[in-house]
Amino acid sequence: MFKLIKKSNQSQARLGKLTTAHGVIDTPFFMPIATRAAVKGLIPEELENLGAQIILSNTYHLFLRPGLEIIKKSDGLHKFMHWEKPILTDSGGYQVFSLEKNRKIKDQGVEFQSEFDGKKIFLTPEKAVEIQKILGSDIMMVLDECAPYPASYDEASRAVIRTTNWAQSSRTAFDKIFKKNRVKPLIFGIIQGSIFKDLRLKSAKDLVKLNFDGYALGGFMVGEPIKDTFKMIKLVEAELPENKARYLMGAGKPEQIVQAVKAGIDMFDCVIPTRNARHGLLYVMTNNKSLMTEKNFYQEIHITNSKYKDDIKPIDSHCECYTCQNFSRAYLRHLFMTNEPLGQRLTTIHNLYFYLNLMKNIREELKKE
Amino acid sequence: MFKLIKKSNQSQARLGKLTTAHGVIDTPFFMPIATRAAVKGLIPEELENLGAQIILSNTYHLFLRPGLEIIKKSDGLHKFMHWEKPILTDSGGYQVFSLEKNRKIKDQGVEFQSEFDGKKIFLTPEKAVEIQKILGSDIMMVLDECAPYPASYDEASRAVIRTTNWAQSSRTAFDKIFKKNRVKPLIFGIIQGSIFKDLRLKSAKDLVKLNFDGYALGGFMVGEPIKDTFKMIKLVEAELPENKARYLMGAGKPEQIVQAVKAGIDMFDCVIPTRNARHGLLYVMTNNKSLMTEKNFYQEIHITNSKYKDDIKPIDSHCECYTCQNFSRAYLRHLFMTNEPLGQRLTTIHNLYFYLNLMKNIREELKKE
Repeated sequence: MFKLIKKSNQSQARLGKLTTAHGVIDTPFFMPIATRAAVKGLIPEELENLGAQIILSNTYHLFLRPGLEIIKKSDGLHKFMHWEKPILTDSGGYQVFSLEKNRKIKDQGVEFQSEFDGKKIFLTPEKAVEIQKILGSDIMMVLDECAPYPASYDEASRAVIRTTNWAQSSRTAFDKIFKKNRVKPLIFGIIQGSIFKDLRLKSAKDLVKLNFDGYALGGFMVGEPIKDTFKMIKLVEAELPENKARYLMGAGKPEQIVQAVKAGIDMFDCVIPTRNARHGLLYVMTNNKSLMTEKNFYQEIHITNSKYKDDIKPIDSHCECYTCQNFSRAYLRHLFMTNEPLGQRLTTIHNLYFYLNLMKNIREELKKE
Repeated sequence: MFKLIKKSNQSQARLGKLTTAHGVIDTPFFMPIATRAAVKGLIPEELENLGAQIILSNTYHLFLRPGLEIIKKSDGLHKFMHWEKPILTDSGGYQVFSLEKNRKIKDQGVEFQSEFDGKKIFLTPEKAVEIQKILGSDIMMVLDECAPYPASYDEASRAVIRTTNWAQSSRTAFDKIFKKNRVKPLIFGIIQGSIFKDLRLKSAKDLVKLNFDGYALGGFMVGEPIKDTFKMIKLVEAELPENKARYLMGAGKPEQIVQAVKAGIDMFDCVIPTRNARHGLLYVMTNNKSLMTEKNFYQEIHITNSKYKDDIKPIDSHCECYTCQNFSRAYLRHLFMTNEPLGQRLTTIHNLYFYLNLMKNIREELKKE
């Protein structure tokens, strides 16, 4: 499923290919977020043109609305949203833990109530696999328990034990459900353990035994010091098989992504580029030399700042995205000041291009190395 | 500027071509509305693909925000918004009269205060021409006074007199400003007179003497009975030269457009398709036979209606727009229910396609007749 093509001799960075039911993806890569079966304001053709190889969608949100029946009737998420490339779906666990106030966690799964129809839902590891099967996911994530940050050692420890148990149940359910399928989705385990070394190590070792198609590092980017994140990544990766993809969930800022690639991470997802775009915070590349060695390779600009009111330059004069090729800062600022919906669409295009192009440049640098 | 190609022998309908500085437009045509230099949520390339030959933009809104300095620095509205086809701009008069509470109307023009910076603005017929020159308009509208509906005979009469005087001043200013220009914009007069026959006739006769490039019928679609609208159109058109374009401002619903084409109108603009799209009200064609003879050729559906929740058909199974080719009612309803901005974009595409395709079909029917 994952083929390691090249390892950097200057860092832990890896170049590879991840094969899924909907196509082969060059690693390292970034996944734009289509929480509710749509990347905010963009059509699939635009995402493809921007260089998106895969998107991420949220099981929890789709399970509540529109609900599985409608996605089933639509022949899965790909057809529903008219996206023919790979889709990674999370298990829904993270949202249940972070968004639901009255969730009850039990050894078998987690119980919560739909805010839309009041129905009680009991999400189990098996059910998370079944739901993701109905969605037609190319890369499934197991149900895990993500401890909050900061967590006590005991809290984090309990979460690791539960995560391992659930990973075992997920693995068993997956193998049973897809026993007869020639083409199967990939299934990834999620390593937890907060910022406790021994817990992270234990979690990684336990999951590796279950032989997942890839390993995600969960429970990061939740407020912990970024130094700790990278310490943990280094520690955990020593336990991971080289021939499996590594996914740092929820990361991150551009410089964090570069740093994580250099630490050996292959996969990223983050709301930052799209959310920032909708708030008018845009990326400008300031360095065209090596991304892998330079630190400050970009700056952020706030398009609503009055200094851009008559600035007829594009967001980034060297950027080749549709927005920068055709529109000025003055025009974009005008759209934001007048709440024209086109503004958010154009800035989303730019910021996603920045991220996806960053990944492309990283891959090209690694190739040339 | 306007070339009459063919007159229907079954109605007053006309087929023609209107030549502007940014291209030739087939008549009859519909103009999507780009109030603040953007059709809500769409890029220019999408508008072109939908069949838009020209768009309408609002002088008043652009004058206030972003202001003329910025548009001047951007080399005009076309470059500012990246639209290379023709643009019609209104004079700003309609908005000053309908939106401004503390406007003061004088014989020389109308005074109001910017809600954004408090500046007092005195909009005169001459100034309206100058502003539209800075915008780079292809079809300018003269400053007029649009009496409210209902208006007393005296009110309507005063508005007609002022409109004629201002039209004279506009004509003079235009001729002076563009004296040395080889390529000139078109300038249209606006006929007023509410629903009083003699006032409408007088207004039309007065304006025709000023030899405008086209004549707009203003002060309609403001709440008057539609029967009266069409009575007045018939009356006024008898006064208009055949070799000038005729524009029914602010019209209208699809059946009104068909009726107005049959009454001899060449040009339309309306917020209905785009505004309705954003509220989830969508058009479905129900008749593929003659548009010019059938009355009920379409129906409206509310996409948020629960009956569409698992409807995997497109909005209109016979429609060839991007939205209908790729997405189901169930998906669109889901986007609306979850406030995903892509929903309004996709329905705007459909409704605009419906309108623009309606005009195309009308032109083709007239050709074949």
